[in-house]
Formats: sequence, structure tokens, C-alpha cells
Amino acid sequence: MARNTLTGNMLIAQSGGPTAVINQSLVGAVLEAKKRKQIKKIYGALHGIKGILEEDLVDLGRESVKTLEDVADTPSSALGSVRKKPTPADCANIFKVLQKYDVRYFFYIGGNDSAETTHIINEEARKAKYDFRCYHICKTIDNDLRENDHTPGFGSGAKFVASAFMGDNLDNRALPGVKINIVMGRHAGFLTAASALARVYPDDGPHLIYLPERPFSMNQFLKDVKGVYNKRGRCVVAVSEGIADKKGTPIASLFIKEKDSHGNVQLSGSGALGDLLAGEIRSKLGISRVRADTLGYLQRSFPGVVSSADAKEARTVGREAVKASVGSYTSGSIAIVRKAGKKYAVSFKRVPLKNVAKETQHMPAKFINKAGNDVTKAFIDYAAPIVGKLPKIGRLKGVRVKKKK
Amino acid sequence: MARNTLTGNMLIAQSGGPTAVINQSLVGAVLEAKKRKQIKKIYGALHGIKGILEEDLVDLGRESVKTLEDVADTPSSALGSVRKKPTPADCANIFKVLQKYDVRYFFYIGGNDSAETTHIINEEARKAKYDFRCYHICKTIDNDLRENDHTPGFGSGAKFVASAFMGDNLDNRALPGVKINIVMGRHAGFLTAASALARVYPDDGPHLIYLPERPFSMNQFLKDVKGVYNKRGRCVVAVSEGIADKKGTPIASLFIKEKDSHGNVQLSGSGALGDLLAGEIRSKLGISRVRADTLGYLQRSFPGVVSSADAKEARTVGREAVKASVGSYTSGSIAIVRKAGKKYAVSFKRVPLKNVAKETQHMPAKFINKAGNDVTKAFIDYAAPIVGKLPKIGRLKGVRVKKKK
Repeated sequence: MARNTLTGNMLIAQSGGPTAVINQSLVGAVLEAKKRKQIKKIYGALHGIKGILEEDLVDLGRESVKTLEDVADTPSSALGSVRKKPTPADCANIFKVLQKYDVRYFFYIGGNDSAETTHIINEEARKAKYDFRCYHICKTIDNDLRENDHTPGFGSGAKFVASAFMGDNLDNRALPGVKINIVMGRHAGFLTAASALARVYPDDGPHLIYLPERPFSMNQFLKDVKGVYNKRGRCVVAVSEGIADKKGTPIASLFIKEKDSHGNVQLSGSGALGDLLAGEIRSKLGISRVRADTLGYLQRSFPGVVSSADAKEARTVGREAVKASVGSYTSGSIAIVRKAGKKYAVSFKRVPLKNVAKETQHMPAKFINKAGNDVTKAFIDYAAPIVGKLPKIGRLKGVRVKKKK
Repeated sequence: MARNTLTGNMLIAQSGGPTAVINQSLVGAVLEAKKRKQIKKIYGALHGIKGILEEDLVDLGRESVKTLEDVADTPSSALGSVRKKPTPADCANIFKVLQKYDVRYFFYIGGNDSAETTHIINEEARKAKYDFRCYHICKTIDNDLRENDHTPGFGSGAKFVASAFMGDNLDNRALPGVKINIVMGRHAGFLTAASALARVYPDDGPHLIYLPERPFSMNQFLKDVKGVYNKRGRCVVAVSEGIADKKGTPIASLFIKEKDSHGNVQLSGSGALGDLLAGEIRSKLGISRVRADTLGYLQRSFPGVVSSADAKEARTVGREAVKASVGSYTSGSIAIVRKAGKKYAVSFKRVPLKNVAKETQHMPAKFINKAGNDVTKAFIDYAAPIVGKLPKIGRLKGVRVKKKK
């Protein structure tokens, strides 16, 4: 393939919900860009497209490698993020700013909404015959981007969720009752499903897992909880924030009204769904000790709980995007592909922007049990290497003492 | 002092809310007991005094050192826990079981309620002239036991809280708005105050900290939040679950009804308080992006986030209790005393059971700022060595690019 000789400035930005490794992608891209003679200035836009529109830029070429490496290990978007769907007027304005600053290399780190934004900006450039390289860099803890075996951010989010359930299962074992934890993931249940990795001993929770991929029935949920509670004297439940009824109406949306500019209902940052479910169990099943926690923003930003595979892949995706941009393709997104074989290994490939834009992917049927309240072994096999090493959980042998007469 | 020649069996149990290091104390006591010729069988009661009353005992002498060490590193009470205030009849029955199993050494790991239970059992033994050693082993993430500079469990809980705020502050910096996190601690604000350790850069949150030691005024709270938000465009707030109004009525109790047998209102395991405060900010201040997370049970049970000082001290407290019990005192609790001097160091001393029973201690005035919405440097100096090393947080230098005309 012909070498790309297009020379100019680069602009990179971050969008959507932060992850624990989103800065790995930023730093991977910046360090690679520094090596490339086609790339002159390396601009970072603050708060995604908002920073582009307002020309709120920083000079990433002036960051030391030491600072960049420290930032790479730090959770949450170092450049700031944004949840903004650009209007057609915004897109035209963004494109004007890019031209004004002679930006020839553009990278947008984000999920499917950000891929869509990247795609629109690329279309603007194409229409204007502006010579331009336009790349999307995947991230989302939801793990719901098409073309990807999994997405950067998911492994670390999943590690946090699995760790949280490990501890919470032990807490529930010590002080029995029903415990519900609400897990992030608007339409895809991957992160909620990752709670299953917490199981070490046969009686460990989560004992039930509810995903947005299966219609949620309150009656069936109560029946399920009652069954586990009667058998074990306790029950730990993982519930996706995105559970919806048969008609597709999110259970949470019956109670929460706020929406962002992509039309998404605010599901996180509220304990409403957990409290609703706990209330139903208390009143309908008459179980007194019922608790609900919403794992909340900690899932995507807790420092120090990082999957090493995830950190490494997030770095690579950023680096590969810059490599691809100085290659022959003018646009694309870097997808993670799992190699066949028993040992976990991945490769990276460029895919067209439109392939990851807008639409998301869901948990495949083979990952969900028939009853729709648990995951399968196929899911565990899929997720375990992405998440990596989890804390070791010890348990007493607990030899019973014979009761004295 | 005369050597204690009392020979018989030992019984140990765990009570109250679990911590990340409560098993360190268990294992510290068991390993020390194995060395002591006065102690024959080592029984563990399952679920605290419930296990004693039901004679539900395990033989801890049959656990391998390997298993015990794995359990020591595992959060949450390995023997199970209980929240039960014994009636006078229960106490008499407990004492009968202890006699039946020739228990001469009794250890109860717990907070102030458990110290009270231990004290009552000891009084029963004294009245019956039963030769008996009766010890309480401190634990509580609330850090509210008298006689103690700090309590085992607090350091790790505080490390989780500080880490959570570090990540959440970065999340809030990336996607600005108002973020409230509700932190555990019924009457003592230590754990909520530990959120202050999350601050690395001058603009880092938490920007406001509300403790149960100061009366909570909704009007002042809204004024404070507005002030920070107007100045910084964002605001991270740490709120203790135990905040109460001028009359001492917990803000949460206006909404939550469930109580345990110690008469304590259920504050954790519900998102109600956070949602209430977020709702007030949304409606009264007109700020749209307001989120609330309740850190919940993760604070006391998250595996892998442990203060090494805390783990070591929890182990020592268990060991010292057994050492003291074979010494000349018939009962007591082991308190952690901080040594004078610049370098952090502690010693351990036996104190009478009644000194730690029932009453709790609060944050001293010198740890709280005048406005009652933050902590002082004295608190940071106090808490930092207990919590130990926190994740490193990197930040871009962020040299602004001059806007082009």
C-alpha cells in the first residue's frame, strides 16, 4: 500500500462515559504520533467536540513522557469528556475549526455515539474534498460496540464488578438476607454478567443475574428470589440498570425522567431502581433484610482496579489508530479481534466507521441461560481472560463440632 | 504478675458489620491460641452469639495455617456475623453453653455493641464465680470505639472511600455536574472525612464534606453547593449516611423505617438519602446534571483494597487479646494507642470492657472546619498513615493553545 504523505496537525479528544483505561488509548495515540513525521502539532480538545467548537485546545506535544505515563495509569478522561450529539450546524462548525488549525489527523475516543459523530465529521470532510484522516478509538465499559470481540474499558469495569460481588457475596454470607446490586450497561448486559466471575465456591453469589437482553418480569423475579432464599437462606442478585419489560420499557424509566441529548434516560447516579426492587421483595415476599446498592460511577473510574489485558489493549488501540491513519485508509475504527485457539490472544483491525457507529451489540444468546436469570459457561470462558486475575478468596474448612447432650 | 494457669477450651466469634480485615483478627487470635498450652480446643461460633445459643460451632484447631492465612486476607467475617442484642435470658443461655463446652477463653470480635455483649457475659461469669477469661477484639469501619486512636477495619474502609472519591472526582472533572456520594458511619464521621484524602490537586473534590457531628441544614447545604458550583462549574460532595438535623433526627430516618434489634435505623443498602439530596439540588438550584451514589457495602468488603497498616494492626489486636487472656487480667479489650512522635507508630493496651462498651466516640472538634462542611489539616495528618498508600493520580500539564483569529 502506498505510504500516506499527508502532513499537518493532529487533534484528539475523548467522549462519553469515562473508563479506567481511556487514558491508555490517549497516551498510546500521542506517543505514536510523536514518532510520525507526517504529524506536526498534537492538539487535545477539552471535553470532546465541545472543546473543538469552542477552540479550547491544549498542546499535547508539550507533555513529558513521564506525565503521559502517569496519566495513562489514571482513570477517567484526562482531556475531559462530553455527552453531546452534534447538530448538523455543529458538524459544519467542527469541520471549520479543524481546517482553521490545519488538522489533518483527527481521533475521537468514545463509544458508538462518538463513532457516529466521527463518521459525520468524516463525511463533511469528504464532501468538502478536504484531505483528512479521521479515526474513532473504541472505548466503553458497556462492551457493546459492533465488530469488537470486546472493547477497551470493559475488562477493568468487569474486574471492578466481579471484585465488588466477591466482597458483597461474603458480606451477605456473614449477614444473610437478600442483596441486590445494580450494575451499569444500558442495553448490553456484559458488565452485569461479569458479576458471575465472582463465584469461587458452589454456593457463592450472585445467585441470580438479570440482563437487559431478556424481558424482565417482576413476578418471575420475585419467584426466582424466593426460590434461592428458601434454599440458601440468602440471595445475592445482579441486576442491569437497563432491564426492561416485554414492551421494551426500561423498568428504571418508569421512575426516572432525565434524558441526555442522545435521548438516553439517566440510569446511573440514582438508587431508584435498586430501592424499587428491594421494596417489592420486602412487601411481596415478607423478607425483612433486603438491601440494594447501585454500584454507580465507581465501576468506570475506580483507581487501582484495572485488568492488565484491558490496559494493554487500550494502549494498543490508540497506537494502532495513529498507525492506520498514516497508512492508506483515510478513516476507520480499530476493532479488537480475538484469535482462535485455547490461549487468549487478540489482534487489531481497521474497520469502517459506519460499522461501529450508532447501533450497539448485545449479549449473544449462547451467553444467557434458558431461564434468563443467569449466564452460561460460554460467557465465563469469554470474559475470564479479558478480566484477568481476581482477588483470592479463602474459606474456612469449618469442621462442625458435635453438639453435646 | 502471676502466670495464668487456667486451662480449658477457647471460643471465638465475630459480630456486627464485616470489615476487610476482620479475619486478620480472627487468625491472629487462633494462631496465638495454638501456641498456648492453657488453651485446648479452639471453637469458632457461627454467626456470633446466635451460633453460641444454637451450639453451632466449628473446630478451628483443624484449620491449616495455609487456610487460615488465605482467610486472613479475605474480607468479611469468615465465621459469619450477627446483629443481635442478647436479652438477659440469652446471656444466661450463652453462659450455660460456654460452661457446657468447658470454654474458659472467650473472644468476641466486634464494635461497641459487641463489647457490651462481652461485658454482660463476663458479668454473668463473675456472678456465677465461673473461672473465665473474656475478651473483646475491636473492629469497626466507623472508627468510633472509645479508648482507641483508631479501630481495625477503619484504615481499609477509609482507603476504599478515598480511592472511590479519587476516581469519582476525575469522573466529575471529565463530565461536570454535582456529584454526591453517601458514605457509611452512623454517628461518627471518620469514614466520610477520609474522602478528603482523595485530594491531590488544589481543585480536586470532595469540595464539601458533611459529617454527623454537625447539624445538617438543607438551606446551608444548598448554599454551599451553589457556591462551589458557581466557582468551579462542578461540585463533588461527601455526605455521611448519619447526617442529622438540629434536633438530632437523622435526615435519612425521615424516609427509612427499618430498624435492627439494637434500635438502629437501616441507613445502608438504600439510595434514598442520596436521591433526596440530589432532588433538592435539582429542584432548588436548577442544576440539571446531579448524580448521587451510595457507596454501600463495598466500603467494608471490597477485596484487594486494604491498608497494610490496618491489616497488620488487626492481626496484632487478635494476637494481643489471646496473649492478655493468658496473662493476669480476666477480661478486657485491646485498644490501639498512637505513640507520640512524627513517625507513625502504635502500641496496644488492655482496657476494661466497660470502657469500650455501649458509648461511641465522635470526630473531635479539631478535625472539623468552622463552617462544618470540611475537615482540617489535623484530620489529614491523623488519617493519612492509617490509610497508607493511595493510587497515584496523573494530570496533564495542559498547555493551552492560543486561539486563532
